[in-house]
Amino acid sequence: MNQHHHIENDDKYSGLTVNSGVTQPPSVNPYLKPRRRKPLPTSGELVEGILKGDVTILSRAVTLVESLSHEHQAIAQEVIEKCLPYSGNSRRIGITGVPGAGKSTSIDVFGLHILKDGGKLAVLAIDPSSERTKGSILGDKTRMERLAVHPSAFIRPSPSAGSLGGVARKTRETIVLCEAAGYNNIFVETVGVGQSETAVHSMVDFFLLIQLAGTGDELQGIKRGIMEMADGIVINKADGDNVDRARLAQAQFRSALHLFPPTMSGWIPEVLCYSGYYDLGIAEVWEMIDRYFKFVKDNGYFERKRQEQARYWMYETINEQLRNHFYSNPEVERLLIEKENRVLSNVQSSFTAARDVLDYYFTQK
Amino acid sequence: MNQHHHIENDDKYSGLTVNSGVTQPPSVNPYLKPRRRKPLPTSGELVEGILKGDVTILSRAVTLVESLSHEHQAIAQEVIEKCLPYSGNSRRIGITGVPGAGKSTSIDVFGLHILKDGGKLAVLAIDPSSERTKGSILGDKTRMERLAVHPSAFIRPSPSAGSLGGVARKTRETIVLCEAAGYNNIFVETVGVGQSETAVHSMVDFFLLIQLAGTGDELQGIKRGIMEMADGIVINKADGDNVDRARLAQAQFRSALHLFPPTMSGWIPEVLCYSGYYDLGIAEVWEMIDRYFKFVKDNGYFERKRQEQARYWMYETINEQLRNHFYSNPEVERLLIEKENRVLSNVQSSFTAARDVLDYYFTQK
Repeated sequence: MNQHHHIENDDKYSGLTVNSGVTQPPSVNPYLKPRRRKPLPTSGELVEGILKGDVTILSRAVTLVESLSHEHQAIAQEVIEKCLPYSGNSRRIGITGVPGAGKSTSIDVFGLHILKDGGKLAVLAIDPSSERTKGSILGDKTRMERLAVHPSAFIRPSPSAGSLGGVARKTRETIVLCEAAGYNNIFVETVGVGQSETAVHSMVDFFLLIQLAGTGDELQGIKRGIMEMADGIVINKADGDNVDRARLAQAQFRSALHLFPPTMSGWIPEVLCYSGYYDLGIAEVWEMIDRYFKFVKDNGYFERKRQEQARYWMYETINEQLRNHFYSNPEVERLLIEKENRVLSNVQSSFTAARDVLDYYFTQK
Repeated sequence: MNQHHHIENDDKYSGLTVNSGVTQPPSVNPYLKPRRRKPLPTSGELVEGILKGDVTILSRAVTLVESLSHEHQAIAQEVIEKCLPYSGNSRRIGITGVPGAGKSTSIDVFGLHILKDGGKLAVLAIDPSSERTKGSILGDKTRMERLAVHPSAFIRPSPSAGSLGGVARKTRETIVLCEAAGYNNIFVETVGVGQSETAVHSMVDFFLLIQLAGTGDELQGIKRGIMEMADGIVINKADGDNVDRARLAQAQFRSALHLFPPTMSGWIPEVLCYSGYYDLGIAEVWEMIDRYFKFVKDNGYFERKRQEQARYWMYETINEQLRNHFYSNPEVERLLIEKENRVLSNVQSSFTAARDVLDYYFTQK
């Protein structure tokens, strides 16, 4: 519930393009103010750079979006506001799957496949470090080796700290900036074991679930409820000895999906096999995704869903801020621990415990 | 989001036992105060009646729980607090299914079946009138004809007004009162098409999904994601010509569930056929539910889940009250409409729109 304030570090990660640039002489005596940072750019400078597609400036702006400092947030929000009219023109695709499903390798080949036709691709992630899966897949960039050096790809790991709501909001804001910078394909990745999938689902147009063949242990990791969110399920590692197993899994998933109620879009989720490692069946996966976008643009669902998502994020942001304001109050924190213990030992009801803490909060202000 | 204040009416519904009682003479000149109500009972009187299992008093207390009046709430919360040590000793079972699945008829036969062995049954519902399904199944009490006249059954329709969160909370509080009144079986019913299922899932031990045979139109109504919450799926109307179809559906659901990841409890959800109308297969359904309770009590999940639910409701109550306080502010309401329009026409980001409304709210206090 609680957001941990973290020190903002501009140099932590600055995108894939290393700006060798001009080394600036120190503007003041470095011995007087040894830790002085680069001066903050104005929102106008940032927007200009973003609209030109300057990756270094985009990275800088994303860093401000992720910052918890008020000064940085003020600039970031101005930048988002100014980028908004230039955003929206992309395919936003959520990709999830358990660790071991070959997600990074798949994103690498998927990315190369779509970039063959031109355009640009941004790969973002939602993976708050507080969740049980340590280490974002994106942290392991070595597995996206071809995409990582591709000039039209922008890979950005998940913000490293904050509540899920906060991290998700920053990812959503980053989408706006990437779109304004001309990225017409956005991948948003999650690890498929936590609470992040609902958040991703509420910011993408298409939700892709990567699965493995097999009906037993391989599925253990994926969280219940995720399968029903998927617009497409793709079974990885359909290669060599594994092809028959993958085909069987495909048939099983197809018949399982058949039992599910229809999606809101009217689209019938498809199940396909592929091999990320051997680069097999990739075109078919993207033909499916192309079909989906044609389908929902034709029936009006695409636009409707985006509007609903914008409304959702407005209310979600409000609700998250209301919670933050409450839970970051030190006395509230102390009271909550005390009350939670009383509730767990059944001496106080959940409702009067809640009421007591709320009474303190509302009278104190 | 917004809760509509409604006039509390003590006489709206007073349970199944009609208290013929003694007609009280008017205590004051009825022409002076023609609309004077019965004096409010004290919490002590209510608790005493509840612990004795007095249905009229239980109904009265539930009415206070459902009331939005501060005076009523104060008494209700005292009653809940005093009942808490006597609560918890029941099987809490969530039952869902689309309209037409035969839910009421099923609850009728399920209820009669478990009451054969003694004990008591309370049937509650979560069905905020604001949702798209008008008319709670429980409103149609004629379909629970045998249970409705059973001396050990207490049927209580959903509170008729309020947000889903508010209605769910009241249902959860009502469970405490019913348990204190000796009801050792609690059914919580929802219609399976709205948002209520998550709320129900968070207050019951076992979640039963009633389905119909068929893989097409019959499933249209059920909301995606619900199937994965189920601890048991039971296929109704497995009678006459329909038996084969029901058996086929059973096999299909079984193989679909097989693809799902394991439940948190370690329990493997079962799929059974029955006929509510012809009273077939009912014992088997309840043997499954008995097996579940034995399983989760043995492995400790039962207790752990109840503790998690108590914690969940404390935080859920807090979050709901924080939202209520915000959304019931008239100026906030006005601003939200204005901001929502700006967001939907893409002239303002979801985030700055949220920020503007929050700024007003927090500075104004």
